[in-house]
Amino acid sequence: MGTEIERKFLVRNDDWRKAANEGRSIRQGYLSSNAKATVRVRTWDDEKAAITLKGKSVGATRAEFEYEIPIDDARELLKLSRPHTIEKRRHELEFGGLTWEIDVFEGRHEGLIIAEVELEHEDQAVEMPSWIGEEVTLDDRYFNASLSRSDGVPPADTDAS
Amino acid sequence: MGTEIERKFLVRNDDWRKAANEGRSIRQGYLSSNAKATVRVRTWDDEKAAITLKGKSVGATRAEFEYEIPIDDARELLKLSRPHTIEKRRHELEFGGLTWEIDVFEGRHEGLIIAEVELEHEDQAVEMPSWIGEEVTLDDRYFNASLSRSDGVPPADTDAS
Repeated sequence: MGTEIERKFLVRNDDWRKAANEGRSIRQGYLSSNAKATVRVRTWDDEKAAITLKGKSVGATRAEFEYEIPIDDARELLKLSRPHTIEKRRHELEFGGLTWEIDVFEGRHEGLIIAEVELEHEDQAVEMPSWIGEEVTLDDRYFNASLSRSDGVPPADTDAS
Repeated sequence: MGTEIERKFLVRNDDWRKAANEGRSIRQGYLSSNAKATVRVRTWDDEKAAITLKGKSVGATRAEFEYEIPIDDARELLKLSRPHTIEKRRHELEFGGLTWEIDVFEGRHEGLIIAEVELEHEDQAVEMPSWIGEEVTLDDRYFNASLSRSDGVPPADTDAS
């Protein structure tokens, strides 16, 4: 059981790469993404796997329950979730006392990069790295469950850098 | 990982009670029941809990993945599944070398009793107890996920006993 509080941003440039680790390859699919709950299957480097159940978002906050499962189960469950799978490489870096995760999307979402930071509470102060762009926390086009149903990268807002 | 092969029947009378155990109280809710997969949260006697992911049925067969989870998580997840929860008492008995499960529904489905038997393969011979009524294996009104969305007991077919 847990609660996830997370802010999400587009990135302005590649400066984050200097501080980031090599990252891990993520494949994930959705068995459900309705009003009540999202059910996600995810594998890391095709070695480790989990299913994650998330409640409806309220602002940047949502209930989250994650359970590790056997990788063989995950491969079967990803087949059930087809064609709604997402592939991305997740890099991590430390900045301002927080861990930032930078997701570099692959396949049909190639070109999309999203930086996420997980917080203890919604109004926590966050020191922004210089490469951080527009915040998309509340923009449901950038929810991974939405991306899983889309054919490409959402068009950037015209006022975004 | 597993495959579930299961046949389901209505019951003609209460004769099954003589051979059945006291059973366990089950509460279950659905976080998803779409074309791809059903995601169920279930508790037994409010002590043990699991989430179960099932693929689409093909005849009496479907993929099934079940993972035990903490009871506290299950209580929270059942809240997310509201109002689509089902309460029933599941009794078991042995007959003809097979284990029969008899679900006695409670609450808004009171009056409904369904007997299930799990098989090794679809064309396995099954010795039918005398109290077995109409088969409802393929009748989606009796899928628990359908019942979770309904307000009562499905009307019996007019040619049913």
